[in-house]
Amino acid sequence: MKTQIEKNAYGYRREIESSFDETVRQTREALQKEGFGVLTEIDMKEKLKEKLDVDFRNYVILGACNPPLAHLALQEDLDIGLLLPCNVIVYETEKGSVVAAIDAKKMLSVAENPNLENTAETVNEKLRSAIESL
Amino acid sequence: MKTQIEKNAYGYRREIESSFDETVRQTREALQKEGFGVLTEIDMKEKLKEKLDVDFRNYVILGACNPPLAHLALQEDLDIGLLLPCNVIVYETEKGSVVAAIDAKKMLSVAENPNLENTAETVNEKLRSAIESL
Repeated sequence: MKTQIEKNAYGYRREIESSFDETVRQTREALQKEGFGVLTEIDMKEKLKEKLDVDFRNYVILGACNPPLAHLALQEDLDIGLLLPCNVIVYETEKGSVVAAIDAKKMLSVAENPNLENTAETVNEKLRSAIESL
Repeated sequence: MKTQIEKNAYGYRREIESSFDETVRQTREALQKEGFGVLTEIDMKEKLKEKLDVDFRNYVILGACNPPLAHLALQEDLDIGLLLPCNVIVYETEKGSVVAAIDAKKMLSVAENPNLENTAETVNEKLRSAIESL
C-alpha cells in the first residue's frame, strides 16, 4: 500500500514499506530523474558510532543539488551556499523506512529574499515529485 | 588588518585578506578546534563547470558537524537531519576571500521546536568562535 506524503513544519515526508537500503536506492534514482545530483552523503549511523560509540538506526542524509537552480540562486545571493544543497533523508523504522525532503521554500525563507521564492518553488515541485514516485 | 564579523539574515560572515586556498585551510583547522568534523565538501566552481559549463569563482561549501550536538538534535527531532550539517562557505573575492557560517538558530527555527534552541545557540557560539579565530 502506498502512503500519502505528509507535510511537517519544514519538509515533505513519506513512510515506505520497503527496507532502508531499497528506499535509499529508489530515492537516488528518483532524484536523478528530477535532475538532482546527489553531491553529498552522510551515514549518520556510522558517524555516531565512530565519534560517540552510540548505536543509532540506519539513517542517511543525501545532499541533492539541481545545478541550474543552484546557479540561479547563487546569482541572486552569493551567500546562498549556506543553504545548499537540499537535504533528503532516509531512515529505518519498524515498518520499513521513512523518506523526507526539505521544504526548500521554508528553508530559503530565512534568507529573506523574495527573488528566491520562484526557484525554491520549482525545487519543491521536483523534490515532491521524486518522493511521490517512490 | 582583521575585519569584523558581519551578521546577515541567516549567517555570520567575514572578509579575509588571505587567498581562497589559505582561508579554506584555516577554516578547516578552526572548525576542528571547535569540535566540528567536516563531513562533506562541495566544490561549486568544479560542479558548475562540469554540469553547466559555467565559469564561477572559487567557492566551497563545507558541511560541519559537531557529533554530540547533532545527536542531541536528532533525539529531540528525528527528522532534523533535513537541516544538518551546518554549512560553512568560503569563496574568493577581489580582495581575498569571504568565509561565512550559517546561523544555526535561524536555520533550525524553521523546525518550530523550542527545545532545539539551546543546542542551536551552542552551535552558533562555536561557529562564531571558529570564524573569529581566523
